Amino acid sequence: MLTNELQHTIDFKTKPLGALGYLEHLAHKIGMVQKTTSPKLLNPHMVVFAADHGIATAGVSTYPPEVTYQMVMNFLSGGAAINVFCRQHHINIKIVDAGVNFDFPADLEVINKKVRKSSRNMLEEPAMTSEEYQQALENGKAVVNEIAKTDCNIIGFGEMGIGNTSASSLMMSQLFDLPIVSCIGRGTGLNDEQLQNKINILSAVIEKYSGIKDTDEIAQTFGGLEITQMIGAMEEAFRRNMLIMVDGFIATVAIATAWKKNPEILNNCIFCHVSDENAHHQLIGLLGQKALLHLNLRLGEGTGCALAYPIIQSAVNFLNEMSSFEDANVSNRE
Amino acid sequence: MLTNELQHTIDFKTKPLGALGYLEHLAHKIGMVQKTTSPKLLNPHMVVFAADHGIATAGVSTYPPEVTYQMVMNFLSGGAAINVFCRQHHINIKIVDAGVNFDFPADLEVINKKVRKSSRNMLEEPAMTSEEYQQALENGKAVVNEIAKTDCNIIGFGEMGIGNTSASSLMMSQLFDLPIVSCIGRGTGLNDEQLQNKINILSAVIEKYSGIKDTDEIAQTFGGLEITQMIGAMEEAFRRNMLIMVDGFIATVAIATAWKKNPEILNNCIFCHVSDENAHHQLIGLLGQKALLHLNLRLGEGTGCALAYPIIQSAVNFLNEMSSFEDANVSNRE
Repeated sequence: MLTNELQHTIDFKTKPLGALGYLEHLAHKIGMVQKTTSPKLLNPHMVVFAADHGIATAGVSTYPPEVTYQMVMNFLSGGAAINVFCRQHHINIKIVDAGVNFDFPADLEVINKKVRKSSRNMLEEPAMTSEEYQQALENGKAVVNEIAKTDCNIIGFGEMGIGNTSASSLMMSQLFDLPIVSCIGRGTGLNDEQLQNKINILSAVIEKYSGIKDTDEIAQTFGGLEITQMIGAMEEAFRRNMLIMVDGFIATVAIATAWKKNPEILNNCIFCHVSDENAHHQLIGLLGQKALLHLNLRLGEGTGCALAYPIIQSAVNFLNEMSSFEDANVSNRE
Repeated sequence: MLTNELQHTIDFKTKPLGALGYLEHLAHKIGMVQKTTSPKLLNPHMVVFAADHGIATAGVSTYPPEVTYQMVMNFLSGGAAINVFCRQHHINIKIVDAGVNFDFPADLEVINKKVRKSSRNMLEEPAMTSEEYQQALENGKAVVNEIAKTDCNIIGFGEMGIGNTSASSLMMSQLFDLPIVSCIGRGTGLNDEQLQNKINILSAVIEKYSGIKDTDEIAQTFGGLEITQMIGAMEEAFRRNMLIMVDGFIATVAIATAWKKNPEILNNCIFCHVSDENAHHQLIGLLGQKALLHLNLRLGEGTGCALAYPIIQSAVNFLNEMSSFEDANVSNRE
């Protein structure tokens, strides 16, 4: 059986049993996904979905909503953190307009998958209509389908959207039936007063839509256009048996949503990073997973994936390149 | 002042304040070492010091002593984990015979810095005579001096030596006046009985040499030839203002020894990895440091440094390549 073959290959590399720790777990996982003892990572891609949020006008973030489109422009000119790290590791980067409240000039390299300009304000109505939600899922799948033509077999997803930690906290609270306070963090840097304000606003949203249990309905009501496209993209990546690199809190909420619909998706997921936000720690635990990096990042954009990528590559490399005790004439333990 | 300039440069990159977490700390540290807001990593090197230990014959390891020379042969033929990871990241690797109990054929690319074949058995006499200890320090310095000719400004140190976790536990216990049991781990995989045996043996060693307080005398009595060369090499790397990548438990004991002699050495150190061994956690804490990676590695060889290197590079890259809020016309927080 492949799982035993993989474990045997790992165990007889020239190192003490288990000495490569989490890298051994990764190597085994990747081998199982690709159904081989000599896996390969091909054409890695990072997709950054961007969208605005109706709730952002209510004061849940310290940054003004126009930062969403400004950061998209920054991604397109190569100056953001995710650009730097993708360049470093030769990861192809794609920027998707999932619903930014801005008309990008047609000559820019942004993938236009805009469903509408910004999600709706949840304080007044669900973030998306059912049709908008379905369209966002489809648009996310379409992005992955296009990338799949390059034979890419490992893909990470990032996001940009002022207000999207609020949407994610609401989704987490509803998906796992948790009090909203345990799902809220300081996002990109709220002080005590701003945090209390965020709690009040999100509590009001929850009160307005009590009793929603269906996973898709939760995402439609509390989510965002970039989060929904990410869910669709993750589902398509799984259907195509790609490895899925999961980034920070928002991406973890997206994968948790997909997992509620199909738990097997976790077989293909590598949790790249656990952020400073307590809710993210908790969520990764609820999924029974461990993260590769603990660097106190709280940026999103997919930066955790890009930083973790060389370590994922190292797991594949040791499996393919290290000699065994037998090959190297090294004595194994007595 | 440079420290403020660096912090300002970091804070005005297009990301929320502090959002790159530990990478920001690293970027600041590297900038301070190189005295510039645009640092560069040049010709990274990994030096693996190998030696045998007299104490290894007493049964402190599950592996036979001949594994030391066998693994050196494996390093030289490129099949060990450290080779794989150094290849991946274009890190130059140098293998040093600091005291292996084997005559290597002259045509092999091993750097001959052998002081003697194996350290002495501490159950009978100090691991090194004073002359052997001084020679080992000098030999370690000489290795770094040679590498410095390539303009290398970042260097990591690994080790191979069956029995060297025992020497390191003894050194830690004596350097920090801690009970030996709190400094002992399962090394490369001891069971309960083997662990108790290790505790008994090391307790007997400590009893034999009670009252030693001088740092160099501790290292001479309880250390090993590869550990001592590593100490000398670290001191020389600091003198040359290189960045020093610190690997696992044994390398951390080496840097702790150098730190006892000159606390400023920590300014240049990047702690790359904290291992599964509780003693390693504790030791990094005693030095007031945090490690970059927590991957449950317990291999040594410098593997933690090689795996962490791309993240160190990422810290430098974001500092040099990310745009500022002003450059990118992105609104900063309100």
